[in-house]
Amino acid sequence: MALNATIRIVATLILAKLMIYFGSKVIERLFAAKPSKYFNDSRIQTLRGLLKSILRYVIYFVTIMSIVEVFVPNAARTILAGAGIVGLAVGFGAQNLVRDVITGFFILLEDQFRVGEYVTLAGVTGTVEEMGLRVTRIRENGGQLHIIPNGLITQVANYNRGAMLAQVEVGISYEENVDRVTAVLKAMCQEFAAAYADDLVEGPEVLGVVRFGESDVVIRLNCKTKPMRQWAIERQLRKMVKETLDREGIEIPYPKRVLISTGGVDGA
Amino acid sequence: MALNATIRIVATLILAKLMIYFGSKVIERLFAAKPSKYFNDSRIQTLRGLLKSILRYVIYFVTIMSIVEVFVPNAARTILAGAGIVGLAVGFGAQNLVRDVITGFFILLEDQFRVGEYVTLAGVTGTVEEMGLRVTRIRENGGQLHIIPNGLITQVANYNRGAMLAQVEVGISYEENVDRVTAVLKAMCQEFAAAYADDLVEGPEVLGVVRFGESDVVIRLNCKTKPMRQWAIERQLRKMVKETLDREGIEIPYPKRVLISTGGVDGA
Amino acid sequence: MALNATIRIVATLILAKLMIYFGSKVIERLFAAKPSKYFNDSRIQTLRGLLKSILRYVIYFVTIMSIVEVFVPNAARTILAGAGIVGLAVGFGAQNLVRDVITGFFILLEDQFRVGEYVTLAGVTGTVEEMGLRVTRIRENGGQLHIIPNGLITQVANYNRGAMLAQVEVGISYEENVDRVTAVLKAMCQEFAAAYADDLVEGPEVLGVVRFGESDVVIRLNCKTKPMRQWAIERQLRKMVKETLDREGIEIPYPKRVLISTGGVDGA
Amino acid sequence: MALNATIRIVATLILAKLMIYFGSKVIERLFAAKPSKYFNDSRIQTLRGLLKSILRYVIYFVTIMSIVEVFVPNAARTILAGAGIVGLAVGFGAQNLVRDVITGFFILLEDQFRVGEYVTLAGVTGTVEEMGLRVTRIRENGGQLHIIPNGLITQVANYNRGAMLAQVEVGISYEENVDRVTAVLKAMCQEFAAAYADDLVEGPEVLGVVRFGESDVVIRLNCKTKPMRQWAIERQLRKMVKETLDREGIEIPYPKRVLISTGGVDGA
Amino acid sequence: MALNATIRIVATLILAKLMIYFGSKVIERLFAAKPSKYFNDSRIQTLRGLLKSILRYVIYFVTIMSIVEVFVPNAARTILAGAGIVGLAVGFGAQNLVRDVITGFFILLEDQFRVGEYVTLAGVTGTVEEMGLRVTRIRENGGQLHIIPNGLITQVANYNRGAMLAQVEVGISYEENVDRVTAVLKAMCQEFAAAYADDLVEGPEVLGVVRFGESDVVIRLNCKTKPMRQWAIERQLRKMVKETLDREGIEIPYPKRVLISTGGVDGA
Amino acid sequence: MALNATIRIVATLILAKLMIYFGSKVIERLFAAKPSKYFNDSRIQTLRGLLKSILRYVIYFVTIMSIVEVFVPNAARTILAGAGIVGLAVGFGAQNLVRDVITGFFILLEDQFRVGEYVTLAGVTGTVEEMGLRVTRIRENGGQLHIIPNGLITQVANYNRGAMLAQVEVGISYEENVDRVTAVLKAMCQEFAAAYADDLVEGPEVLGVVRFGESDVVIRLNCKTKPMRQWAIERQLRKMVKETLDREGIEIPYPKRVLISTGGVDGA
Amino acid sequence: MALNATIRIVATLILAKLMIYFGSKVIERLFAAKPSKYFNDSRIQTLRGLLKSILRYVIYFVTIMSIVEVFVPNAARTILAGAGIVGLAVGFGAQNLVRDVITGFFILLEDQFRVGEYVTLAGVTGTVEEMGLRVTRIRENGGQLHIIPNGLITQVANYNRGAMLAQVEVGISYEENVDRVTAVLKAMCQEFAAAYADDLVEGPEVLGVVRFGESDVVIRLNCKTKPMRQWAIERQLRKMVKETLDREGIEIPYPKRVLISTGGVDGA
Repeated sequence: MALNATIRIVATLILAKLMIYFGSKVIERLFAAKPSKYFNDSRIQTLRGLLKSILRYVIYFVTIMSIVEVFVPNAARTILAGAGIVGLAVGFGAQNLVRDVITGFFILLEDQFRVGEYVTLAGVTGTVEEMGLRVTRIRENGGQLHIIPNGLITQVANYNRGAMLAQVEVGISYEENVDRVTAVLKAMCQEFAAAYADDLVEGPEVLGVVRFGESDVVIRLNCKTKPMRQWAIERQLRKMVKETLDREGIEIPYPKRVLISTGGVDGA
Repeated sequence: MALNATIRIVATLILAKLMIYFGSKVIERLFAAKPSKYFNDSRIQTLRGLLKSILRYVIYFVTIMSIVEVFVPNAARTILAGAGIVGLAVGFGAQNLVRDVITGFFILLEDQFRVGEYVTLAGVTGTVEEMGLRVTRIRENGGQLHIIPNGLITQVANYNRGAMLAQVEVGISYEENVDRVTAVLKAMCQEFAAAYADDLVEGPEVLGVVRFGESDVVIRLNCKTKPMRQWAIERQLRKMVKETLDREGIEIPYPKRVLISTGGVDGA
Repeated sequence: MALNATIRIVATLILAKLMIYFGSKVIERLFAAKPSKYFNDSRIQTLRGLLKSILRYVIYFVTIMSIVEVFVPNAARTILAGAGIVGLAVGFGAQNLVRDVITGFFILLEDQFRVGEYVTLAGVTGTVEEMGLRVTRIRENGGQLHIIPNGLITQVANYNRGAMLAQVEVGISYEENVDRVTAVLKAMCQEFAAAYADDLVEGPEVLGVVRFGESDVVIRLNCKTKPMRQWAIERQLRKMVKETLDREGIEIPYPKRVLISTGGVDGA
Repeated sequence: MALNATIRIVATLILAKLMIYFGSKVIERLFAAKPSKYFNDSRIQTLRGLLKSILRYVIYFVTIMSIVEVFVPNAARTILAGAGIVGLAVGFGAQNLVRDVITGFFILLEDQFRVGEYVTLAGVTGTVEEMGLRVTRIRENGGQLHIIPNGLITQVANYNRGAMLAQVEVGISYEENVDRVTAVLKAMCQEFAAAYADDLVEGPEVLGVVRFGESDVVIRLNCKTKPMRQWAIERQLRKMVKETLDREGIEIPYPKRVLISTGGVDGA
Repeated sequence: MALNATIRIVATLILAKLMIYFGSKVIERLFAAKPSKYFNDSRIQTLRGLLKSILRYVIYFVTIMSIVEVFVPNAARTILAGAGIVGLAVGFGAQNLVRDVITGFFILLEDQFRVGEYVTLAGVTGTVEEMGLRVTRIRENGGQLHIIPNGLITQVANYNRGAMLAQVEVGISYEENVDRVTAVLKAMCQEFAAAYADDLVEGPEVLGVVRFGESDVVIRLNCKTKPMRQWAIERQLRKMVKETLDREGIEIPYPKRVLISTGGVDGA
Repeated sequence: MALNATIRIVATLILAKLMIYFGSKVIERLFAAKPSKYFNDSRIQTLRGLLKSILRYVIYFVTIMSIVEVFVPNAARTILAGAGIVGLAVGFGAQNLVRDVITGFFILLEDQFRVGEYVTLAGVTGTVEEMGLRVTRIRENGGQLHIIPNGLITQVANYNRGAMLAQVEVGISYEENVDRVTAVLKAMCQEFAAAYADDLVEGPEVLGVVRFGESDVVIRLNCKTKPMRQWAIERQLRKMVKETLDREGIEIPYPKRVLISTGGVDGA
Repeated sequence: MALNATIRIVATLILAKLMIYFGSKVIERLFAAKPSKYFNDSRIQTLRGLLKSILRYVIYFVTIMSIVEVFVPNAARTILAGAGIVGLAVGFGAQNLVRDVITGFFILLEDQFRVGEYVTLAGVTGTVEEMGLRVTRIRENGGQLHIIPNGLITQVANYNRGAMLAQVEVGISYEENVDRVTAVLKAMCQEFAAAYADDLVEGPEVLGVVRFGESDVVIRLNCKTKPMRQWAIERQLRKMVKETLDREGIEIPYPKRVLISTGGVDGA
């Protein structure tokens, strides 16, 4: 038995050694193969170190258990069983952690967003301040810093990946001539396109009548802007629309009511 | 024992070799049989290579474990047990990944949507920009790029698979004659059908009175258009309706109130 | 041992052969017994072929594993264990697929809806365009094609399985005599029933006062129509109600307000 | 070994025979003991036949596996393992089916509702048209036929198990004398109770002032009616209330506003 | 082997006998110890009988399996495995049943509500008509009978366990003197307390100004009543408040608007 | 074998004895170490007794099983397997019970709330009447007694752990001078602070303009009060605000509308 | 056997000793390595002590089980099985506890918030009063103390990590000149920036026209403030805006209506 045990222990140790060696190699190659733009060097170092540590400790633990097994078969099994219950409990709790890290990894890999971009995710809209493997930090417009576990990030809406839409709706009176208003606004659009050429991707255009309102006919203007310029452009466009309509004497009507009076109890 | 062990190792190795060989064959045939329109060649190459790599590494791992088992039975089992816990934790996390890929596969297979189509899925409406095995990228009208894991795509609504409905509702006064208004709008519809024949699939028609409003009788016009032309057609139709009613002296009424005055405290 | 092994292999092979044979028979009979109206022939062929293939491949796999087991007991077990983890992961992902197919099967078996019927399911209302084992395609009124996995179809509302209700509500003034209005509408109902006998299942009737509104007493008319004719009938009925009330001088009142004026700050 | 095997096979066969025999007996007695009002005879026959078939096939399968086990121990186990994975997948999908049938069974056993009764369940209100073991079919008032898996039926509201409440609320002016109105309505209630004695279970009564509205004091009348007569009674009661108040000169007030005028910019 | 088998069978039978004997004893004592007010005698008998039957059948089954095991070891195991799959499927479905019964048991044990009490549970408010181990039947005010599985009853609100609050809010004009109104209402409260002493637990009191409304200052009156008398008391209190304010000339104001007129387009 | 069996039985019995002895000791010490303020003596006694009983019965059961195992190995295992299925079913149902008790334990341990405190938990706001290990009873203001399983209590809001905020908002006319109103209210605050010093923790202060309303500029007053005095203070503060503004001639404005009249169809 | 048993027991005891020794070392180093700012010394002591106790008791239990195993193999296994069921039940219940502690640990580690900071988490907004491993205590503005298990804290919004946004919107009349108003407000902004330099991070600026309201053109002013000063600044800015517009004679308009009068029934 002694010989048998010796052989098994030696074999186990050699095996462990080999697994650490090759496992480290695999980890090295995994990261060497991806000298990407958003993994800066220091982060790679950290991640690589972390993964190697985990590998090493796991193999140490398994090796010790295997050697213990040789001498005290049942003890090892009992320890494992006992550890299993604790492990299961912790595992359930840690499940979220694993999910966070996996999602975080895919966010980086697929370049879903970067630091500084304006995004909507997990119901929060704001600027990404920091991307971690477990959490992402986003600053809302109001100034609040949101700390969001990556596992909660399912859908991402990114506002920095192409031209954004600026849209202004203005209601004109039912009595107004739609063709004339359209012509006036079209002229204004060209003027606007010239004035804000830097921010615009596609000059504003008059879409037409998009809704019959209670007291007004609603006309919509659309244009495409450089990312993050959409709000400023919308405000400028809105201001110019008001000025143009004022100049041309086209009314933006207040809510209107037609009143039908009938004599009341005392004849009024 | 030595002989027995040798036989088992050799058998294991042969088995592994065979499984890699036949498994690769199966993967090859699977893809050769589907030279489809939306799987372009390079993607097939990638996918095929990926699947073969996975197959190979899985079989390598199992083979090594089997051989280790021959020499150090318990070690292998313990390693597996240890790996099992880690694997389980990772597996729970990876579950979403598997679901994403399977759903992505069915989206392709069933041709649910293609790049460039206008769709609603996972609560987002926009144009498909890129279809991947794990995520789909959709650009909303506002310009935001949405990155949606395929597993979240349960129901798809596709706006490019047949004629679309353009619908305009207009309220006329209760005092107006419904038959006359209907006749006027019907005449207008023919005119409209002629003017926009290119975009229309089924000329606009006057459906009739669809609602008694608070201050108006609501009449609806329907027509069917080529995909993605429905909004432009709706705007044009709305404009022509307003012009026609203006020309014919048919009023689109403002909200009306009947006032019954009674003398107040001071007699007014 | 050699003899024993030979016997086991032969027995396994015979067993496999028998299971394929009888399993195929069962599949054949299952489908022969159901030459139903909605399973057209080609679909049966496809399904039968598919099921047989699955059966055959499963039995092949099990047989090979059993034979491998004879020679290399642990290898087979290890392979199975390894495959089990992968299988479990895939299985979790495929769970939805199984659910889709089972639900799809029950939809066909219980004839819940057919192609061309107008239904509400999974929050979408429209006409069924295609029924598959995994997905159902429904075209909404707006023209969008919805692709819905069958597993999401829990409750179905079918609009083509019996007479539909057409319902019109009209508000009359509080000053009006309810009995007179009812009599007028009842007469109109008979006229209407005669005019639209083709579409009606049960002539329109005046239900009575269903609500005291803010400014009106609301009267409801009900009738039952042939499936899918309910909307057209409602529009016609609404039009006739308006014409009848106009003719009889019965007012559909605008919202009313009683105003009590009091002298203001400057005495007005 | 041969003898041993023979004994085991014979014992297995006898056991299987006995289990089929006694299992069938149990099934027979289960249904014989419940010759209930809502299980008509043909359904019992069907159900009994079905259960016996299931029992028989399950025992056949187990018996064959047991005999196979005698000759090829591992093959049987492997088959079971293989079948187990498939079974698990199907089982997850079939879970809903089992839940549907169990819930359906309890609906029948506890007589929660019957065909023809008016119920609310799973968010749908209508008349039960058909009760099956897996699905219940309900026709909504609008005419749509809803097909609802029994497993979705958690809470049931049944409108046919006792007197129903008919309730009318009417607003009177703040200037009106509440006592007088109450007296007038009480007299009317007696008249009404006499006129509609057939449908009423408990004559209408004037509850009193239930709310101070914006422009009216709201008085409520309650009565209890025979099942499904509540809506007709409510309409009749509402009509009589209006006629009575009209006759007595009690006003149902329109919304009132007190206006305080102040001189405007131009002095008005 | 024969001897060994005989001993095992005899031991098994004795063991089964003992377990039935002592198990029944335990069940007897469990119920004898609780001759409580809401477990009437017949129900105890039923429950006790049921539990004993279940115990007996379970032990029979296990005993037979144990004896079969002696002769045909694998058959028993295979039967159990086969039964296990069926059992698991049924078990998942029956899970709700178990939850219903356990919750039902706690409802009784903790006396959460009794037949005839007015409760809110699972979103339904009404009078308890019947309490079962699996379902509770509640009659809503409208007359509908709700059948609710006990497992859905998580939170219970019971209206019969102490004094109930009756609350009336009345708005007075901003021009009114709050102190005077309070004094008037306080006097009325004493009168009311005397008149309705039978139903009141704590006489009505004037709480004070609880809200600045758009057109009124809202004053609240509270009192505590005997259970189920709260609505009648509220109606009486509301009526007396109206009468008192009328008598004292304190106005309950209609909604007020301050109008600022400006000359319109045509000078008005 | 007999000797071996005897030794095992004796060892088992001794082990059981020891475990009961030391387990009881542990339970004793656990409770002795916590003579806390909210565990009154009788409850400790009950809990200690209960835990000891559970411990004893569990060890009895295990011991008997172990001894049975010695004689009839398979029977015990089969019993356990059979019991396991029942146990699993019951366990799933009992899961909630365990969760309730654990949460209840933490509520006590962390002193989250006590009997008599005013809290919001599980969507119910009211006064705690009774705290049990499984359920908490809370009386809502309306008088209803809510019985809430502790497991549903996730977040607790406690109104008795520090000063509460009383907050009054009052709208003043846009024509009013904000500085003057603020000064007037500040003076009033000092007066108020003197008058209600007993209930106040931090005297009322005028926060400033918190909103531009449609017709008024909204000013907010804050103060901190002793727990449960916040509502009375708010009512008193509101009353004093109204009196002060009345006295100073500062108007709380009614909703205002600017009317622009235009000549109607008939020239008015 | 005796020798064998002795060796196993001794080996087990040595193993246990070693594990306690090295486990304690690991715990010591873990905490020594993190003398962080938010782990005050006493808390570290407590946590370290707690972890060591848990480690010790777990190892004791496993050791005893291992030794029992040597003498009574089956007893230990049966005890474990029995304990396993209880443990599983408790484990499910304790799952939340584990999740709470893990989340609590990450909150500390990632410095998501500290005592005294103003945060929004789990739907509650307030000031952190105490951070524990299981629960976090937050005081809402109203004074309520919320006790929130850490496991419910998924997303955190922290208001103390950078400048906060103060935002005021004011509506001006459509008749007003936008350029003039903008100029007036810009001048005011500089004045304001000077007056409140202490609280401001980025002086207020006039953004422009952000909305066409029903009766007004809405202009927005933004500024960035020191954390927690945003509300005070907003109130001050709002007050200064009102004073400035008053001074300049720029109207903040009341809601406007255009009235079109038509002759009523009696000609008015």
